[in-house]
Amino acid sequence: MKVLIVYAHPEPKSFNAALKDTAIQTLKQEGHKVKVSDLYEMNFNPVAQKEDFTELSDKAFFKYAKEQQHSYQNDTLNPVIKEEFEKLLWADFVIFQFPLWWFSVPAILKGWFDKVLLFSGVYGGEYGRYNEARLTDKLAMISTTTGSPEGSYASNGFSGDIHEQILFHINHGMFYFTGMTPLEPFVAYTVSHSEEDRKNYLKEFEEKLKNIEQIKRIEYPKLEAFDENGQLKS
Amino acid sequence: MKVLIVYAHPEPKSFNAALKDTAIQTLKQEGHKVKVSDLYEMNFNPVAQKEDFTELSDKAFFKYAKEQQHSYQNDTLNPVIKEEFEKLLWADFVIFQFPLWWFSVPAILKGWFDKVLLFSGVYGGEYGRYNEARLTDKLAMISTTTGSPEGSYASNGFSGDIHEQILFHINHGMFYFTGMTPLEPFVAYTVSHSEEDRKNYLKEFEEKLKNIEQIKRIEYPKLEAFDENGQLKS
Repeated sequence: MKVLIVYAHPEPKSFNAALKDTAIQTLKQEGHKVKVSDLYEMNFNPVAQKEDFTELSDKAFFKYAKEQQHSYQNDTLNPVIKEEFEKLLWADFVIFQFPLWWFSVPAILKGWFDKVLLFSGVYGGEYGRYNEARLTDKLAMISTTTGSPEGSYASNGFSGDIHEQILFHINHGMFYFTGMTPLEPFVAYTVSHSEEDRKNYLKEFEEKLKNIEQIKRIEYPKLEAFDENGQLKS
Repeated sequence: MKVLIVYAHPEPKSFNAALKDTAIQTLKQEGHKVKVSDLYEMNFNPVAQKEDFTELSDKAFFKYAKEQQHSYQNDTLNPVIKEEFEKLLWADFVIFQFPLWWFSVPAILKGWFDKVLLFSGVYGGEYGRYNEARLTDKLAMISTTTGSPEGSYASNGFSGDIHEQILFHINHGMFYFTGMTPLEPFVAYTVSHSEEDRKNYLKEFEEKLKNIEQIKRIEYPKLEAFDENGQLKS
């Protein structure tokens, strides 16, 4: 399997870095091919802006999706973004390793989604959305760390339900929107509090990645299940 | 009322800009004081990094929240971030104006949350979280624009429920986490498709901002409603 790890943490000695290193080592041992996008090391610029394109189709009105389409069709995408896009197309499985900041991804990783998930390159244009988008041959998985304890992320917890309320905008809105099948996230809760917890989580992560086929897939309804108003047919 | 508008769109002629301008004009006419943070115009750097602090408490291990605390206590926060933090403390009401990109905020705005919502400055340290955090005297509201039609964001819509599944990580995870009371979001659906829709939405936004007291508040449970495992007491 070809695996891309998109990694976002500013500290190389962090637990997120340890999870990323565990993933690289485990996946390689299992015979997978691995590429890594270390966004902090790359000094990745997350701001969607005119400089993301080497030419603009409309200099008078900057519409990001339109310029993504133009640059995709004319091969005028900024080389840094193009390389990320090509890594994404290469991969069978994409792992996003990041600390949960404000119940979402760090800004540097949000910019990766804003910039690399190209309109007309992965959805729109000749492609549709969700199960009609381009990346239906790929799996995607969140691997993240939290500040609040596990109980608070359960249904009726004070943080909100980790799956239905918090990570939905990523699993459904980013992964599934582009066609990818989301795998059940790997969440390490409040790891900064205990060395033993950290060891156990690394071991658990390793075991998980040795058995990718057994990781639960998150199933969302296909587009054909919805009526012309965008509502589930009853 | 003192109102801060945090605005994130790269195109000054966009509909998001028109909504921002409508807000400024309406609020001033109603006698409110208004400040604006135009993140693209400011060239705001959203990447959480060492340069956000003029000194580090721990040069060997970069932990962002810890450095936020140190910089808050020692007045060593980067001046750009400090100014945003002071604007936030100044405001009674904060409006976030942005296009919904990948079911969340653009990266440049995510970085504003990552950087300005200081650990120990608005939560943690002497403050708690949610109704025990610092910003309980403030209202906050999302004003956003979407690419998919309204029906798809209803319960059972193909985009997901706009309130419970998509904007929850912002309203609950960013606003309420810091103590702010979220107001019902203003959402302009698929505005790029119709000039008439745009006019109607601007009018609707204006009317809404003339009657801030009547905008519905989103109520979340207080911390004391949860047990020691972080679960709602039954």
